[in-house]
Amino acid sequence: MTAAELETYLHDHIPLSRAMVVHVVSVADDRIVLGAPLAPNINHRDTVFGGSAAAVATLAAWSLLHLRLTAADLPSRVVIQSSSMDYLAPMAADFTASAVLDPGADWDGFVRMLARRGRARIALQAELTCEGQTAGRFWGEFVAFGKDRL
Amino acid sequence: MTAAELETYLHDHIPLSRAMVVHVVSVADDRIVLGAPLAPNINHRDTVFGGSAAAVATLAAWSLLHLRLTAADLPSRVVIQSSSMDYLAPMAADFTASAVLDPGADWDGFVRMLARRGRARIALQAELTCEGQTAGRFWGEFVAFGKDRL
Repeated sequence: MTAAELETYLHDHIPLSRAMVVHVVSVADDRIVLGAPLAPNINHRDTVFGGSAAAVATLAAWSLLHLRLTAADLPSRVVIQSSSMDYLAPMAADFTASAVLDPGADWDGFVRMLARRGRARIALQAELTCEGQTAGRFWGEFVAFGKDRL
Repeated sequence: MTAAELETYLHDHIPLSRAMVVHVVSVADDRIVLGAPLAPNINHRDTVFGGSAAAVATLAAWSLLHLRLTAADLPSRVVIQSSSMDYLAPMAADFTASAVLDPGADWDGFVRMLARRGRARIALQAELTCEGQTAGRFWGEFVAFGKDRL
Protein backbone atom coordinates (compact mmCIF):
# COMPACT_ATOMS: atom_id res chain seq x y z
CA MET A 1 0.00 0.00 0.00
CA THR A 2 1.43 3.37 -1.02
CA ALA A 3 1.22 6.57 0.96
CA ALA A 4 -1.51 7.85 -1.38
CA GLU A 5 -3.51 4.63 -1.05
CA LEU A 6 -3.29 4.70 2.74
CA GLU A 7 -4.37 8.34 2.79
CA THR A 8 -7.39 7.58 0.62
CA TYR A 9 -8.26 4.59 2.78
CA LEU A 10 -8.12 6.64 5.98
CA HIS A 11 -10.11 9.54 4.54
CA ASP A 12 -12.75 7.22 3.09
CA HIS A 13 -13.22 5.00 6.15
CA ILE A 14 -12.44 7.22 9.13
CA PRO A 15 -14.05 10.62 8.45
CA LEU A 16 -12.33 12.17 11.46
CA SER A 17 -8.99 11.69 9.64
CA ARG A 18 -10.38 13.91 6.89
CA ALA A 19 -11.66 16.47 9.40
CA MET A 20 -8.19 16.54 10.98
CA VAL A 21 -6.71 16.87 7.44
CA VAL A 22 -4.36 13.96 8.15
CA HIS A 23 -1.90 13.22 5.37
CA VAL A 24 0.50 10.33 4.98
CA VAL A 25 4.09 11.56 5.11
CA SER A 26 5.79 8.20 4.60
CA VAL A 27 5.07 4.51 4.62
CA ALA A 28 7.68 1.83 5.28
CA ASP A 29 7.54 -1.66 6.71
CA ASP A 30 8.96 -0.48 10.01
CA ARG A 31 7.56 3.05 10.30
CA ILE A 32 4.55 5.08 9.25
CA VAL A 33 4.55 8.85 9.58
CA LEU A 34 1.31 10.82 9.46
CA GLY A 35 1.09 14.59 9.50
CA ALA A 36 -1.66 17.09 10.28
CA PRO A 37 -1.91 20.88 10.14
CA LEU A 38 -2.55 23.03 13.18
CA ALA A 39 -5.72 24.84 11.99
CA PRO A 40 -8.30 22.00 12.09
CA ASN A 41 -6.70 20.62 15.26
CA ILE A 42 -6.28 23.84 17.20
CA ASN A 43 -7.47 24.43 20.75
CA HIS A 44 -8.42 27.51 22.79
CA ARG A 45 -4.71 28.21 23.42
CA ASP A 46 -3.79 28.15 19.72
CA THR A 47 -1.89 24.90 20.11
CA VAL A 48 -2.82 21.37 19.06
CA PHE A 49 -5.77 19.93 20.99
CA GLY A 50 -4.57 16.90 22.98
CA GLY A 51 -7.40 14.80 21.61
CA SER A 52 -6.21 15.47 18.06
CA ALA A 53 -2.64 14.52 18.96
CA ALA A 54 -3.80 11.24 20.51
CA ALA A 55 -6.11 10.53 17.55
CA VAL A 56 -3.38 11.05 14.92
CA ALA A 57 -0.95 8.89 16.94
CA THR A 58 -3.61 6.18 17.21
CA LEU A 59 -4.15 6.31 13.44
CA ALA A 60 -0.42 6.05 12.75
CA ALA A 61 0.00 3.01 15.00
CA TRP A 62 -3.12 1.31 13.68
CA SER A 63 -2.00 1.95 10.08
CA LEU A 64 1.43 0.40 10.64
CA LEU A 65 -0.05 -2.74 12.17
CA HIS A 66 -2.72 -3.00 9.47
CA LEU A 67 -0.13 -2.64 6.69
CA ARG A 68 2.30 -5.12 8.20
CA LEU A 69 -0.46 -7.71 8.57
CA THR A 70 -1.62 -7.12 4.99
CA ALA A 71 1.97 -7.43 3.73
CA ALA A 72 2.34 -10.69 5.69
CA ASP A 73 -0.82 -12.00 4.00
CA LEU A 74 -2.61 -12.13 7.34
CA PRO A 75 -5.71 -10.00 6.83
CA SER A 76 -7.00 -9.30 10.32
CA ARG A 77 -9.34 -7.13 12.26
CA VAL A 78 -7.17 -4.85 14.39
CA VAL A 79 -8.66 -3.36 17.53
CA ILE A 80 -7.07 -1.00 20.02
CA GLN A 81 -7.24 -2.34 23.56
CA SER A 82 -5.49 0.31 25.62
CA SER A 83 -3.30 3.33 25.11
CA SER A 84 -1.45 6.03 26.95
CA MET A 85 -0.19 9.45 25.99
CA ASP A 86 2.48 11.66 27.52
CA TYR A 87 2.13 15.27 26.47
CA LEU A 88 5.63 16.72 26.67
CA ALA A 89 5.29 20.15 25.05
CA PRO A 90 2.55 22.22 23.44
CA MET A 91 2.53 22.08 19.63
CA ALA A 92 1.97 25.48 18.00
CA ALA A 93 2.33 24.41 14.36
CA ASP A 94 1.77 21.46 12.02
CA PHE A 95 2.79 18.17 13.60
CA THR A 96 3.62 14.57 12.77
CA ALA A 97 3.07 11.21 14.44
CA SER A 98 5.67 8.57 13.69
CA ALA A 99 4.66 5.02 14.60
CA VAL A 100 6.89 1.99 15.09
CA LEU A 101 6.56 -1.36 16.82
CA ASP A 102 7.27 -1.15 20.51
CA PRO A 103 10.96 -2.10 20.98
CA GLY A 104 9.83 -4.96 23.21
CA ALA A 105 7.34 -6.31 20.66
CA ASP A 106 7.93 -9.83 19.31
CA TRP A 107 6.61 -9.66 15.76
CA ASP A 108 7.35 -13.28 14.88
CA GLY A 109 5.70 -14.51 18.07
CA PHE A 110 2.72 -12.27 17.37
CA VAL A 111 2.32 -13.67 13.86
CA ARG A 112 2.66 -17.28 15.08
CA MET A 113 0.08 -16.70 17.81
CA LEU A 114 -2.30 -15.05 15.36
CA ALA A 115 -1.99 -17.97 12.91
CA ARG A 116 -2.37 -20.59 15.65
CA ARG A 117 -5.01 -19.07 17.91
CA GLY A 118 -6.71 -16.58 15.59
CA ARG A 119 -5.96 -13.82 18.06
CA ALA A 120 -2.80 -12.07 19.23
CA ARG A 121 -1.72 -8.89 20.93
CA ILE A 122 1.10 -6.47 20.20
CA ALA A 123 2.26 -3.03 21.33
CA LEU A 124 3.20 -0.07 19.16
CA GLN A 125 4.43 3.38 19.98
CA ALA A 126 4.32 6.73 18.25
CA GLU A 127 6.24 9.92 18.70
CA LEU A 128 4.66 13.31 18.12
CA THR A 129 6.96 15.94 16.65
CA CYS A 130 6.43 19.63 16.04
CA GLU A 131 9.00 22.12 14.78
CA GLY A 132 11.79 19.59 15.29
CA GLN A 133 10.87 18.92 18.90
CA THR A 134 9.47 15.74 20.41
CA ALA A 135 6.16 16.94 21.81
CA GLY A 136 4.44 13.75 22.90
CA ARG A 137 4.66 9.99 23.19
CA PHE A 138 1.92 7.46 22.51
CA TRP A 139 1.89 3.82 23.47
CA GLY A 140 -0.87 1.47 22.43
CA GLU A 141 -1.73 -2.19 22.75
CA PHE A 142 -3.64 -3.69 19.85
CA VAL A 143 -5.35 -7.02 19.35
CA ALA A 144 -5.55 -8.66 15.94
CA PHE A 145 -8.27 -11.16 15.14
CA GLY A 146 -7.44 -13.53 12.29
CA LYS A 147 -9.37 -14.30 9.16
CA ASP A 148 -11.87 -16.68 10.74
CA ARG A 149 -12.81 -14.03 13.25
CA LEU A 150 -12.95 -11.07 10.90
CA MET B 1 -21.59 28.19 32.56
CA THR B 2 -24.63 26.44 31.13
CA ALA B 3 -24.59 23.42 28.86
CA ALA B 4 -25.35 25.66 25.87
CA GLU B 5 -22.56 28.07 26.75
CA LEU B 6 -20.04 25.25 27.15
CA GLU B 7 -21.10 23.75 23.83
CA THR B 8 -20.67 27.09 22.06
CA TYR B 9 -17.28 27.58 23.72
CA LEU B 10 -16.05 24.15 22.63
CA HIS B 11 -17.32 24.52 19.06
CA ASP B 12 -15.84 28.01 18.73
CA HIS B 13 -12.42 27.26 20.21
CA ILE B 14 -11.77 23.61 19.42
CA PRO B 15 -12.95 23.00 15.84
CA LEU B 16 -12.49 19.25 16.18
CA SER B 17 -15.33 19.25 18.72
CA ARG B 18 -17.55 20.64 15.97
CA ALA B 19 -16.26 18.08 13.45
CA MET B 20 -17.06 15.34 15.97
CA VAL B 21 -20.51 16.96 16.50
CA VAL B 22 -19.94 16.95 20.26
CA HIS B 23 -22.89 18.17 22.30
CA VAL B 24 -23.12 18.89 26.00
CA VAL B 25 -25.54 16.49 27.66
CA SER B 26 -25.27 17.86 31.19
CA VAL B 27 -23.16 20.18 33.31
CA ALA B 28 -22.86 19.92 37.09
CA ASP B 29 -20.17 20.85 39.56
CA ASP B 30 -19.16 17.22 39.97
CA ARG B 31 -19.85 15.78 36.52
CA ILE B 32 -19.89 16.83 32.90
CA VAL B 33 -21.39 14.58 30.26
CA LEU B 34 -20.64 15.09 26.58
CA GLY B 35 -22.22 13.14 23.75
CA ALA B 36 -21.34 12.51 20.12
CA PRO B 37 -23.06 10.70 17.27
CA LEU B 38 -21.56 7.70 15.52
CA ALA B 39 -21.52 9.03 11.94
CA PRO B 40 -18.74 11.66 12.13
CA ASN B 41 -16.74 9.42 14.47
CA ILE B 42 -17.09 6.12 12.64
CA ASN B 43 -14.22 3.84 11.66
CA HIS B 44 -13.69 1.21 8.98
CA ARG B 45 -15.57 -1.33 11.14
CA ASP B 46 -18.66 0.88 11.54
CA THR B 47 -17.90 1.47 15.21
CA VAL B 48 -16.52 4.55 16.97
CA PHE B 49 -12.90 5.32 16.06
CA GLY B 50 -10.75 4.99 19.20
CA GLY B 51 -9.21 8.40 18.59
CA SER B 52 -12.66 10.00 18.67
CA ALA B 53 -13.51 8.22 21.91
CA ALA B 54 -10.29 9.43 23.54
CA ALA B 55 -10.79 12.96 22.20
CA VAL B 56 -14.36 13.28 23.55
CA ALA B 57 -13.26 11.89 26.93
CA THR B 58 -10.38 14.39 27.00
CA LEU B 59 -12.79 17.24 26.23
CA ALA B 60 -15.18 16.15 28.99
CA ALA B 61 -12.42 15.99 31.61
CA TRP B 62 -10.86 19.27 30.50
CA SER B 63 -14.30 20.95 30.56
CA LEU B 64 -15.06 19.81 34.10
CA LEU B 65 -11.74 21.09 35.42
CA HIS B 66 -12.08 24.37 33.50
CA LEU B 67 -15.59 24.95 34.86
CA ARG B 68 -14.69 24.09 38.45
CA LEU B 69 -11.74 26.49 38.35
CA THR B 70 -13.89 29.23 36.85
CA ALA B 71 -16.59 28.64 39.50
CA ALA B 72 -13.90 28.83 42.22
CA ASP B 73 -12.77 32.18 40.78
CA LEU B 74 -9.39 30.70 39.87
CA PRO B 75 -9.07 31.35 36.14
CA SER B 76 -6.22 29.11 35.01
CA ARG B 77 -4.60 27.65 31.98
CA VAL B 78 -5.35 23.94 32.05
CA VAL B 79 -3.02 21.60 30.19
CA ILE B 80 -3.20 17.83 29.83
CA GLN B 81 -0.01 16.12 30.93
CA SER B 82 -0.74 12.44 30.47
CA SER B 83 -3.67 10.18 29.83
CA SER B 84 -4.62 6.57 29.38
CA MET B 85 -7.56 4.83 27.78
CA ASP B 86 -8.94 1.34 28.21
CA TYR B 87 -11.15 0.31 25.34
CA LEU B 88 -13.59 -2.22 26.79
CA ALA B 89 -16.12 -2.75 24.01
CA PRO B 90 -16.75 -1.47 20.48
CA MET B 91 -19.34 1.31 20.27
CA ALA B 92 -21.74 0.89 17.35
CA ALA B 93 -24.01 3.87 18.08
CA ASP B 94 -24.00 7.36 19.58
CA PHE B 95 -21.93 7.53 22.74
CA THR B 96 -21.28 9.68 25.81
CA ALA B 97 -18.25 10.55 27.93
CA SER B 98 -18.98 11.30 31.57
CA ALA B 99 -16.14 13.03 33.43
CA VAL B 100 -15.62 13.28 37.19
CA LEU B 101 -12.67 14.01 39.44
CA ASP B 102 -10.54 10.95 40.08
CA PRO B 103 -11.80 9.43 43.37
CA GLY B 104 -8.29 9.92 44.77
CA ALA B 105 -8.11 13.59 43.79
CA ASP B 106 -7.74 16.14 46.59
CA TRP B 107 -9.62 19.17 45.24
CA ASP B 108 -8.96 21.40 48.28
CA GLY B 109 -5.25 20.58 48.24
CA PHE B 110 -5.15 21.23 44.49
CA VAL B 111 -6.76 24.66 44.93
CA ARG B 112 -4.43 25.56 47.81
CA MET B 113 -1.38 24.52 45.80
CA LEU B 114 -2.57 26.46 42.76
CA ALA B 115 -3.10 29.61 44.85
CA ARG B 116 0.24 29.24 46.65
CA ARG B 117 2.55 28.04 43.88
CA GLY B 118 0.69 29.15 40.76
CA ARG B 119 0.74 25.58 39.53
CA ALA B 120 -0.96 22.36 40.61
CA ARG B 121 -1.82 18.95 39.24
CA ILE B 122 -4.98 16.87 39.46
CA ALA B 123 -6.41 13.70 37.95
CA LEU B 124 -9.80 13.21 36.34
CA GLN B 125 -11.48 10.22 34.84
CA ALA B 126 -14.19 9.69 32.26
CA GLU B 127 -16.38 6.77 31.39
CA LEU B 128 -17.50 6.09 27.85
CA THR B 129 -20.99 4.65 27.50
CA CYS B 130 -22.84 3.35 24.46
CA GLU B 131 -26.26 1.74 24.41
CA GLY B 132 -26.26 1.45 28.20
CA GLN B 133 -22.91 -0.34 28.31
CA THR B 134 -19.60 0.94 29.70
CA ALA B 135 -17.38 0.85 26.63
CA GLY B 136 -14.21 2.58 27.77
CA ARG B 137 -12.40 4.28 30.60
CA PHE B 138 -10.23 7.39 30.38
CA TRP B 139 -7.86 8.68 33.02
CA GLY B 140 -6.02 11.97 32.65
CA GLU B 141 -3.63 14.09 34.66
CA PHE B 142 -3.95 17.83 34.14
CA VAL B 143 -1.83 20.75 35.25
CA ALA B 144 -3.36 24.14 36.01
CA PHE B 145 -1.28 27.29 35.80
CA GLY B 146 -2.64 30.19 37.85
CA LYS B 147 -3.45 33.71 36.80
CA ASP B 148 0.13 35.00 36.82
CA ARG B 149 1.14 32.25 34.46
CA LEU B 150 -1.84 32.39 32.12
